[in-house]
Amino acid sequence: MINLTEKEKTIADQIFELKKQAGTHSPSLFTLKQQISNLEIKIDACFLSNPYATDLFLEYFKKELIETGDIRDILEFYPAQNQRTANILAPHLNIDPKCIFMGNGASEIIQAIIHNFTKEKLLINIPTFSAYYEFTKPNCKIIYNKLKKEDQYLLDSKKYIELAKKEKPDTAIIINPNNPDGRYLPLEEIHYILEELQEIETIIIDESFIHFAYENTNFDLNSSIQLTKKYPNLVIIKSMSKDFGIAGIRAGYAIMSPERVQKLLKNGYLWNISGLAEYFFQLYIREDFLEKYEKLRIQYIKETQAFHQSISNIPNLTVYPSMANFLLIELLNISSDDFMIKSLVSHGIYVRTCGDKIGLEGEFIRLASRKKSENQTIIESINNIINE
Amino acid sequence: MINLTEKEKTIADQIFELKKQAGTHSPSLFTLKQQISNLEIKIDACFLSNPYATDLFLEYFKKELIETGDIRDILEFYPAQNQRTANILAPHLNIDPKCIFMGNGASEIIQAIIHNFTKEKLLINIPTFSAYYEFTKPNCKIIYNKLKKEDQYLLDSKKYIELAKKEKPDTAIIINPNNPDGRYLPLEEIHYILEELQEIETIIIDESFIHFAYENTNFDLNSSIQLTKKYPNLVIIKSMSKDFGIAGIRAGYAIMSPERVQKLLKNGYLWNISGLAEYFFQLYIREDFLEKYEKLRIQYIKETQAFHQSISNIPNLTVYPSMANFLLIELLNISSDDFMIKSLVSHGIYVRTCGDKIGLEGEFIRLASRKKSENQTIIESINNIINE
Repeated sequence: MINLTEKEKTIADQIFELKKQAGTHSPSLFTLKQQISNLEIKIDACFLSNPYATDLFLEYFKKELIETGDIRDILEFYPAQNQRTANILAPHLNIDPKCIFMGNGASEIIQAIIHNFTKEKLLINIPTFSAYYEFTKPNCKIIYNKLKKEDQYLLDSKKYIELAKKEKPDTAIIINPNNPDGRYLPLEEIHYILEELQEIETIIIDESFIHFAYENTNFDLNSSIQLTKKYPNLVIIKSMSKDFGIAGIRAGYAIMSPERVQKLLKNGYLWNISGLAEYFFQLYIREDFLEKYEKLRIQYIKETQAFHQSISNIPNLTVYPSMANFLLIELLNISSDDFMIKSLVSHGIYVRTCGDKIGLEGEFIRLASRKKSENQTIIESINNIINE
Repeated sequence: MINLTEKEKTIADQIFELKKQAGTHSPSLFTLKQQISNLEIKIDACFLSNPYATDLFLEYFKKELIETGDIRDILEFYPAQNQRTANILAPHLNIDPKCIFMGNGASEIIQAIIHNFTKEKLLINIPTFSAYYEFTKPNCKIIYNKLKKEDQYLLDSKKYIELAKKEKPDTAIIINPNNPDGRYLPLEEIHYILEELQEIETIIIDESFIHFAYENTNFDLNSSIQLTKKYPNLVIIKSMSKDFGIAGIRAGYAIMSPERVQKLLKNGYLWNISGLAEYFFQLYIREDFLEKYEKLRIQYIKETQAFHQSISNIPNLTVYPSMANFLLIELLNISSDDFMIKSLVSHGIYVRTCGDKIGLEGEFIRLASRKKSENQTIIESINNIINE
């Protein structure tokens, strides 16, 4: 096993103290930079978003809002209410606007759905994104379906359906691709699960990472949103933070039955979209923007594949299959905490440890794919730490 | 009575159609501009915010985020969680951070409080901001305490306390200054009400317009937030949209008992603050910013007083007393809808009619105070419409 140096140990203590204060998730890069002065962080490999998409958004933002002065209206005035932005999105998604609910980031939508539609029993695959079980009400029973290491964390649809039919949860959640492993269920498999589980009141498919998955050589997107027309129990959740690189704006949407949308709106989610989020959604449906975005999406997927391949070639670790913009990596000769500290202190690269992820046994980190040159630096530093 | 011209009638039809689509509130200026092409809108006198504060925020925004390029971090990365921003605010407010809940605008906070703490009976003064009764759950009984025209819409504290003791609501709401009339209860009077109504489980004081009210010639702010230390049933709600002119950012906070804050955080309001809102709150506590802001706040209050005085001198209308940045005006020789149309079509000034405000009998408009030169234009146009 590889051990920490004295300098690394000192910084480790500071970081674990910050982690305690940070709530349920890792301290942000901003917090680390602010609180630990002698730390030079160059790459945030915790952060799951397409950096090229951020560049593209910034290009439009500067040209259309800053240079024109229109930013004032965006900041000063009230944005449109939820349903007006849904109307803008509807033709692009080919979904009835009455079925679209706009969210202040996917996390608001998760909260709204879990609190308004989940009753007493929730089925969730683990490892998973913790908000889904953290946000449940105290009286809600959670059934954990453990994804198996020997299946490389791929969901076994048949066994899943059996379990769901036996346990009869009122809510079932599938993140596709899943977080933190990136495993992807093809559209046909999702369709099969939905067909079998029509008696479950609410099935949530979280497609926050779907723009990074594909089933053909054109890298075409295979969203399940059209299945909401066939299965009224289906709720699709979509964050825009990952694929469009705009986590700071807080923008997301969900597709669900009109009755559910009405219930949420009646419950007060009226003015939850900021002026910048409204601008983003207006941009998101524009052909000129989408054409440029699509090129960057495919470029990023290809670079992520190459990154995946290179990491796989490093000895002393196991990389699991992923169709998202991150990799779940099992470390074989160092603890994940020690790896994180070494990576941060000696290479300026911040990685996500998975010690808090229930259902993962072993020393795991989750590594985000960043820009090509950054990925190269990440690969070299991992090699250096693990095989020094 | 004054009537509409043919051109005004045509546009009136278009606007009332948009109003139907706009949900519970007036169509935004942006919507009007987009949908009615031959309309030239110069002044939005519906919009309740300090325009000088917007100028100030924009000055910092440009210098600190745009010119430095730091805007990228704000847009790209996840903002800090709710409680980290509460920590930033705590020393400035002189309130324990555990008692501060950050909101995606006051409307999110209203929703969160009404849904998590209001049980079956809510006492509210009317006329009021409609969200308070619109967001209640279907089984909640609403007791309306009608503010009287003969009292010039001032709350009679003694009678209010009597009513509350008789009706025993679990929640009572006081907006101070009240919307849409701007009437203000001095801090001592709020204290008296709280002292008398300690048996009510939740008393909400909404101070979204408090920065425009004052009790001495220095225009000092008299917030009730310190009373939360004495009365655990007190919840203070504060929008930043009005006094800081940043409605598009969606920023607000609330002060309440630590148990209530914990309950809301546990219910999922974790990542509800955008990157820009986080930046705003960091700015909001800085001395250099506050010093400049304070000057603009007082300048705006003085200009609003002068505006009030000038409007009061116009015949054929009644202006009610106000300590907010708007005036409730009763029209005596024209309907409020016709006035709104004439003002919009012939003068390019958009005003808020109050036909949807329950508890107001008569033809009322609510007029926002804008910049000095705009206020002058508003005064002249009203004179022109009413006394043509």
